[in-house]
Amino acid sequence: MNHEELKKLILGIQKGETSTDEAFEKLRDLSFTDLGHSKIDNHRELRTGYPEVIFCAGKTVDQVKDIIQHMLSKGENILATRATEDMYNAVKTICSEAEFHPLARTITIKRKKIKVPETSIAIVTAGTSDIPVAEEAAITAEVFGNKVLRVFDVGVAGIHRLYGKLPEIRNCRVIVVVAGMEGALPSIVGGLVDKPVIAVPTSIGYGANFHGLSALLGMLTSCASGVTVVNIDNGFGAGYMASMINKL
Amino acid sequence: MNHEELKKLILGIQKGETSTDEAFEKLRDLSFTDLGHSKIDNHRELRTGYPEVIFCAGKTVDQVKDIIQHMLSKGENILATRATEDMYNAVKTICSEAEFHPLARTITIKRKKIKVPETSIAIVTAGTSDIPVAEEAAITAEVFGNKVLRVFDVGVAGIHRLYGKLPEIRNCRVIVVVAGMEGALPSIVGGLVDKPVIAVPTSIGYGANFHGLSALLGMLTSCASGVTVVNIDNGFGAGYMASMINKL
Amino acid sequence: MNHEELKKLILGIQKGETSTDEAFEKLRDLSFTDLGHSKIDNHRELRTGYPEVIFCAGKTVDQVKDIIQHMLSKGENILATRATEDMYNAVKTICSEAEFHPLARTITIKRKKIKVPETSIAIVTAGTSDIPVAEEAAITAEVFGNKVLRVFDVGVAGIHRLYGKLPEIRNCRVIVVVAGMEGALPSIVGGLVDKPVIAVPTSIGYGANFHGLSALLGMLTSCASGVTVVNIDNGFGAGYMASMINKL
Amino acid sequence: MNHEELKKLILGIQKGETSTDEAFEKLRDLSFTDLGHSKIDNHRELRTGYPEVIFCAGKTVDQVKDIIQHMLSKGENILATRATEDMYNAVKTICSEAEFHPLARTITIKRKKIKVPETSIAIVTAGTSDIPVAEEAAITAEVFGNKVLRVFDVGVAGIHRLYGKLPEIRNCRVIVVVAGMEGALPSIVGGLVDKPVIAVPTSIGYGANFHGLSALLGMLTSCASGVTVVNIDNGFGAGYMASMINKL
Amino acid sequence: MNHEELKKLILGIQKGETSTDEAFEKLRDLSFTDLGHSKIDNHRELRTGYPEVIFCAGKTVDQVKDIIQHMLSKGENILATRATEDMYNAVKTICSEAEFHPLARTITIKRKKIKVPETSIAIVTAGTSDIPVAEEAAITAEVFGNKVLRVFDVGVAGIHRLYGKLPEIRNCRVIVVVAGMEGALPSIVGGLVDKPVIAVPTSIGYGANFHGLSALLGMLTSCASGVTVVNIDNGFGAGYMASMINKL
Amino acid sequence: MNHEELKKLILGIQKGETSTDEAFEKLRDLSFTDLGHSKIDNHRELRTGYPEVIFCAGKTVDQVKDIIQHMLSKGENILATRATEDMYNAVKTICSEAEFHPLARTITIKRKKIKVPETSIAIVTAGTSDIPVAEEAAITAEVFGNKVLRVFDVGVAGIHRLYGKLPEIRNCRVIVVVAGMEGALPSIVGGLVDKPVIAVPTSIGYGANFHGLSALLGMLTSCASGVTVVNIDNGFGAGYMASMINKL
Amino acid sequence: MNHEELKKLILGIQKGETSTDEAFEKLRDLSFTDLGHSKIDNHRELRTGYPEVIFCAGKTVDQVKDIIQHMLSKGENILATRATEDMYNAVKTICSEAEFHPLARTITIKRKKIKVPETSIAIVTAGTSDIPVAEEAAITAEVFGNKVLRVFDVGVAGIHRLYGKLPEIRNCRVIVVVAGMEGALPSIVGGLVDKPVIAVPTSIGYGANFHGLSALLGMLTSCASGVTVVNIDNGFGAGYMASMINKL
Amino acid sequence: MNHEELKKLILGIQKGETSTDEAFEKLRDLSFTDLGHSKIDNHRELRTGYPEVIFCAGKTVDQVKDIIQHMLSKGENILATRATEDMYNAVKTICSEAEFHPLARTITIKRKKIKVPETSIAIVTAGTSDIPVAEEAAITAEVFGNKVLRVFDVGVAGIHRLYGKLPEIRNCRVIVVVAGMEGALPSIVGGLVDKPVIAVPTSIGYGANFHGLSALLGMLTSCASGVTVVNIDNGFGAGYMASMINKL
Repeated sequence: MNHEELKKLILGIQKGETSTDEAFEKLRDLSFTDLGHSKIDNHRELRTGYPEVIFCAGKTVDQVKDIIQHMLSKGENILATRATEDMYNAVKTICSEAEFHPLARTITIKRKKIKVPETSIAIVTAGTSDIPVAEEAAITAEVFGNKVLRVFDVGVAGIHRLYGKLPEIRNCRVIVVVAGMEGALPSIVGGLVDKPVIAVPTSIGYGANFHGLSALLGMLTSCASGVTVVNIDNGFGAGYMASMINKL
Repeated sequence: MNHEELKKLILGIQKGETSTDEAFEKLRDLSFTDLGHSKIDNHRELRTGYPEVIFCAGKTVDQVKDIIQHMLSKGENILATRATEDMYNAVKTICSEAEFHPLARTITIKRKKIKVPETSIAIVTAGTSDIPVAEEAAITAEVFGNKVLRVFDVGVAGIHRLYGKLPEIRNCRVIVVVAGMEGALPSIVGGLVDKPVIAVPTSIGYGANFHGLSALLGMLTSCASGVTVVNIDNGFGAGYMASMINKL
Repeated sequence: MNHEELKKLILGIQKGETSTDEAFEKLRDLSFTDLGHSKIDNHRELRTGYPEVIFCAGKTVDQVKDIIQHMLSKGENILATRATEDMYNAVKTICSEAEFHPLARTITIKRKKIKVPETSIAIVTAGTSDIPVAEEAAITAEVFGNKVLRVFDVGVAGIHRLYGKLPEIRNCRVIVVVAGMEGALPSIVGGLVDKPVIAVPTSIGYGANFHGLSALLGMLTSCASGVTVVNIDNGFGAGYMASMINKL
Repeated sequence: MNHEELKKLILGIQKGETSTDEAFEKLRDLSFTDLGHSKIDNHRELRTGYPEVIFCAGKTVDQVKDIIQHMLSKGENILATRATEDMYNAVKTICSEAEFHPLARTITIKRKKIKVPETSIAIVTAGTSDIPVAEEAAITAEVFGNKVLRVFDVGVAGIHRLYGKLPEIRNCRVIVVVAGMEGALPSIVGGLVDKPVIAVPTSIGYGANFHGLSALLGMLTSCASGVTVVNIDNGFGAGYMASMINKL
Repeated sequence: MNHEELKKLILGIQKGETSTDEAFEKLRDLSFTDLGHSKIDNHRELRTGYPEVIFCAGKTVDQVKDIIQHMLSKGENILATRATEDMYNAVKTICSEAEFHPLARTITIKRKKIKVPETSIAIVTAGTSDIPVAEEAAITAEVFGNKVLRVFDVGVAGIHRLYGKLPEIRNCRVIVVVAGMEGALPSIVGGLVDKPVIAVPTSIGYGANFHGLSALLGMLTSCASGVTVVNIDNGFGAGYMASMINKL
Repeated sequence: MNHEELKKLILGIQKGETSTDEAFEKLRDLSFTDLGHSKIDNHRELRTGYPEVIFCAGKTVDQVKDIIQHMLSKGENILATRATEDMYNAVKTICSEAEFHPLARTITIKRKKIKVPETSIAIVTAGTSDIPVAEEAAITAEVFGNKVLRVFDVGVAGIHRLYGKLPEIRNCRVIVVVAGMEGALPSIVGGLVDKPVIAVPTSIGYGANFHGLSALLGMLTSCASGVTVVNIDNGFGAGYMASMINKL
Repeated sequence: MNHEELKKLILGIQKGETSTDEAFEKLRDLSFTDLGHSKIDNHRELRTGYPEVIFCAGKTVDQVKDIIQHMLSKGENILATRATEDMYNAVKTICSEAEFHPLARTITIKRKKIKVPETSIAIVTAGTSDIPVAEEAAITAEVFGNKVLRVFDVGVAGIHRLYGKLPEIRNCRVIVVVAGMEGALPSIVGGLVDKPVIAVPTSIGYGANFHGLSALLGMLTSCASGVTVVNIDNGFGAGYMASMINKL
Repeated sequence: MNHEELKKLILGIQKGETSTDEAFEKLRDLSFTDLGHSKIDNHRELRTGYPEVIFCAGKTVDQVKDIIQHMLSKGENILATRATEDMYNAVKTICSEAEFHPLARTITIKRKKIKVPETSIAIVTAGTSDIPVAEEAAITAEVFGNKVLRVFDVGVAGIHRLYGKLPEIRNCRVIVVVAGMEGALPSIVGGLVDKPVIAVPTSIGYGANFHGLSALLGMLTSCASGVTVVNIDNGFGAGYMASMINKL
């Protein structure tokens, strides 16, 4: 339930248009619904402006299905990240409009329309192998109601590939830069644009990459200003933050 | 030179109001000025919307003075971070309106007026010992033209201290959260507000803190959404990013 | 053999009620039984108040079966942790009342009654994925004779879910808090209750989580007092310590 | 203000024995007092059973003095850890009964009497160099109203030194074991007693000790049960937890 | 070829008892034999007193077979470590007396008799799971001509199990102690005996064990003297060194 | 397109020997070709003297095939590293002269002749298990037009094996040294030759090797001069750099 | 003694132009001179083409003076790195033409002329604070007889500063790139030039820089080819390698 | 008290040659003497063959003096490591024959004669800067009654310096090899001799040396057999172990 919906409900009660039973039904789970294994945070949208998102890693197929079953009854748009195809198949049985994005490993269910701002979010990758993380960011941003500009494989080993895309990127309101290995691209982009840059280190690489550590440390110590960092491979976090900024 | 100033100059040349000599003088250093030890990036404001900032650590007093001397001739507002009192004293001899902020270890020089948005930036700390980093963020945000709300010492060991300040914090457009030790405060704040949170880990702590590593890793793996992270003790980076977002 | 049983045996010998052969049989393995691959510590209960527990990881199915076979002859309650289903099936062939707890990966065999204190142990998790570790703690506490209150999925991203459960938690004598990712929940709980908190970091997470390191460091550097920490994913250790404190 | 004091105050108001002004004075700071740089958590004793403790590292002499000045007005016993002699001298000017414990680096001020349980806390060190951390634990336990048994320099290189002291240690209700280098002592003690062991790794050592890391990892992976761990050099945390358990 | 064999050959040449062709055949590969993928160090026994040992990890089955084929022609005893059953099966086809030790993952081939000293090597483990590494050490020591005393599962959680075995251990000339988790056993043993202790950390454990790091650091920082350390899980290295010392 | 080819094209246009259409066709992709998932850097040879190389790890079979399909149309020699047999089979269907080097995990396609310098590159390994990385370096050097001297299994445990090969190695113009475990061989070689040494740490080893970290740190801190280092297992990088130096 | 000098000496002996005494004097220390604390490697120039260099860190002033005293008698050019002013003053007393380079912390003594190649070495830094390391590289390259092009402060936050200098850099035969923080500059340069790039990470930065680790890992995992890496702050190593390549 | 002395005392009591008082005086402190801050392990020589050694780091001057004062009364030879000059001066006041070894940072007091074996211990260093650690090993070995051969500065950058000394080294019974930076020397020596090698990593180096980590990991992963390792900079531990082996 978001701010508007809650206000409408209160008004309905005040005006007598909403019956006690109806009001009770809608309000009793305002805080959270306890499924035993999980407590679904129904109140989150009121607090943070965004519905709860399901992080599927470490959950069983049944737990994911349970949670989605419950959320469907609330009419929210639903995003499940780090989802497997098995989870998608289980969800499909209870909701036929569920979509699976295999590259991004996400399930999305669109139930209500969201206002989409005019401005876009740019999602830029250094290499081809960074695309899955970028797609997680892109799907996240789109499901929360944003236009996305995808610019892939423009890393620093051939930096001229970035320059051709720079005017389009500069037109966006916020920029997500996804890179593995040495993770240098956010520094370059941060030095060329006047928009917030959200850097996503990926675990792409080997050896001294140490599963994304090289890219992570590189981005944190970036000599460019206006760059902040999320966890290794955290496309969702970057897409979420970009959406927040794009909608301010 | 920012976007507006450059456009005015081009117009002046087109209209014949600006002489060739004058135009040359103004344009020849558009890209950068080479001081030998440093190449001052005069072009940065055009590219990124912000003038170059001097990171003083690792520079000599003379180098800092040289760079500021040059920048003064451009009429920019100046921010120098990680500055010592010695540097300030040297700068004072060439610019009497320079101010020193000992807690934040910054020198500021205000030469031109900047438009300040209506919305504020909240700067929140977990403890008293985190204040110097928070002040670096606050001074940075202020010198770039932002209103700042300071909320200090509201860490998770007594989380009720945060709740009292929550309405004010929620009114801000972007929130900087500064915390050392386990660095849990950004997760809490991120779960309670609908605004972007910029998390700053500090090196406050001992033992398994490993000079800020515990806070850094904690913030990167935050289970709250809408949280991005900057380098350990990087108050400047957080203040800069917050300003960027606040001015979008 | 525990304190009481040993005293009774000595009395029996003194009074002549226990024959030499009988006494010899009971006392010869008082110290430990040597199975070649393992030396079972029969003396542990006398020393520490708790019978030996079998940590199955790195042991073969046959070794686990051997050890349990021997322990059965002593009449003790038996707890085997990190057990596989294969181990359980082998144990089943020699002891039909063995129970397997798949989520907790433990085998339990109850042979003698234990006094259960009035007070309870609260076992709290931050997320759904932390439940297996929490269950290991819960089963451990229960097999050693304690009442357990389970409170799952009340992590800091939606901290209001914790507040609803706080009165019940405060009624417990000791609190186990299980959390992965940034591991912030023990700090929060520690700041809200006047009972000892045992923090269990889990390896749930990815990237900068580094297999539980972020949660571990966070808990060790907690700014709340009254929090101590066990190894990553060590539900058993937390349940054991909680039982010790609950029974003081 | 602790539970009893609050109940007495409420009763006084109900019975009319406490005037409005008096009640207001006592209640207005119930939550916290805001000194600007610090928010003193007056409510902590109600919540956790213990008054706030001042962690002096990273605070200025004036900040420490300010905080103590305020706390003195509440009549609480006061404990300040990681204090310098300078801080003590400043505190002395406002409170003559303040005591300094140079080895433990703590300042204590006793203002009200606390009930001391019959049972003791054992504080055991592996070496002579671990004594400062052990003393921080001991002073903490004593200021919170506990009897302390000190057993120093009984580390594993000459383990017979421990055995002589074992009966006394076993008589205590909870045991703090402080060790640097390989940190093996808590494992040994944990295998010999039936009481909770709180392990404190110290930064004593060099080379592969990595500032206490070897002891910390050793204690976390202890093969003995009933051992939990606090941060490197965190004598305070261990003394606090031991007090909590001793007073259950 | 060892010292004695070389001297005999030289004498044979001097006395004319060995023909030129025979001498040439025996001497041409004195230094090393080049198999392309490997250069077998035939000279090692002359230099170090021990024949070359085959470390099989990272080698193909064919490479291992090739190397052994060549070594067989020299009449040496052969030891291959980290061997798989597949490798053993391949070796079996060219040498029927090859033996496989599955626990120790080693292949041994005994071709010539070695003098065995009167004194023994003790090989002690903390737990049951450490036995495979201990067996690698034991097989190594035995193949090089040493008597071995195996003492398994006497770790510090029940240290009395060690004391019963102490007299036998003290009778050995050198002691190998194998332990995972916190790796405390070598410190204990080192403090109780007057013989060199070779400590072998194992990767047994989980969480903060970090694949043997906790045991490794613990052993390196041991407060007992007379303890040196080999690589994690390096049973071979310990058995080799113990043999060297036992044969001095 | 390399320097010469571009100059010839420009001359052709100037002389009217190349038609507009032809010129357009050749120049339109001069910068890069956008395949959506990848942007092929056609311009790289002009800039760096070497055509783009395909790093296959993290790419799908189809992506690799797409990229090679496109590059074939340019007539370049092609090198794909970290390739699987599946990738090779897919490439085979579009280019029959593709070769697979299973040890080196590379695919090569030779389309045009390259000038080969007189001088050679030595590629030296410490052990047999380091050969795959060495082969990646060798194939890389060969495909870029260099003669290679392979010297395998001459590590420091039997350093005399190196001395026999030293004259040949000294005759080369640049030396690649590949070593795992402690990675000492580059230091030895660097102290014996007057040629640049490129050190490649490998992940061969176990325990304190930490996946190549021991070799990497050892090589970086080498006390011999004239040694530079590439990433762990980066045979390609070493072969590429060696080629660059050999062709200067 | 270098190759030419040795050949001349042998010729002199053969022709009888050099007396026995003279020859003995020159040859007796050909291998090394033993000063007790140090063994000066007189043979190094013959082996590696370069005279021994004195790494002063960890040596006493007297040891440095002793070593230089001895080397002076050989007529070599001398380079001492990581030298203090005290060392320089001591050296000055025995050799008046010694020069001190305070920024580079090196002492140089030029005694014989070296052939200088036509081609230059470019030494490029990301920031002003990286200059000391760059100067160590530059002085090293110069003392070994190379022309050096210095290009300072052209890091990626304002990458246009690099483009202006690119033609000059491309004219050099080998390029040293010195950078701290995220260390991204070598990747950029490596993608733009067709010359070998030697990357030098510096310890400039703070927090997640971890004393140069971020720059080191970034450079090792560079996605640009033709980049090799030396130790953190190892300007000498880079200058030495660059000289080797420049003189091939 | 060592084995012989104890036997003589027992005999004296049996024969009536030792009075009750005398026997009591000698036996009452047989186990340990409690100085409060320290428990001196008088029993150690009986157990381990060596008297207790004082590790001075982390102890106050007074504590060191107290301990030595007590030990003097027992007539033992005394070794204090990591001692400062201040400690020496304090000790001097109570024992004029105390000697200080500033390079090795040790105090030695010789009170009784020890049998010295015929065989020697070789102590070899890679560089000049490793000498202090080597001297700690040498002094330790000497005070425990061993002959020492010192061979300094023969590291792998000029490995021919080692070969000249090899025959002498091979004559020793055990070899201590001390090296910093990449720590390669023990591998080389281990491959050339048939004696046990004890490797001591030192913290000499910078950057990727990480305070001795590179040398430590290198030595642990040595491809040579017969090499064991002690802690970084632990000259004492190496000298102690070498003495143990030399005296077997």
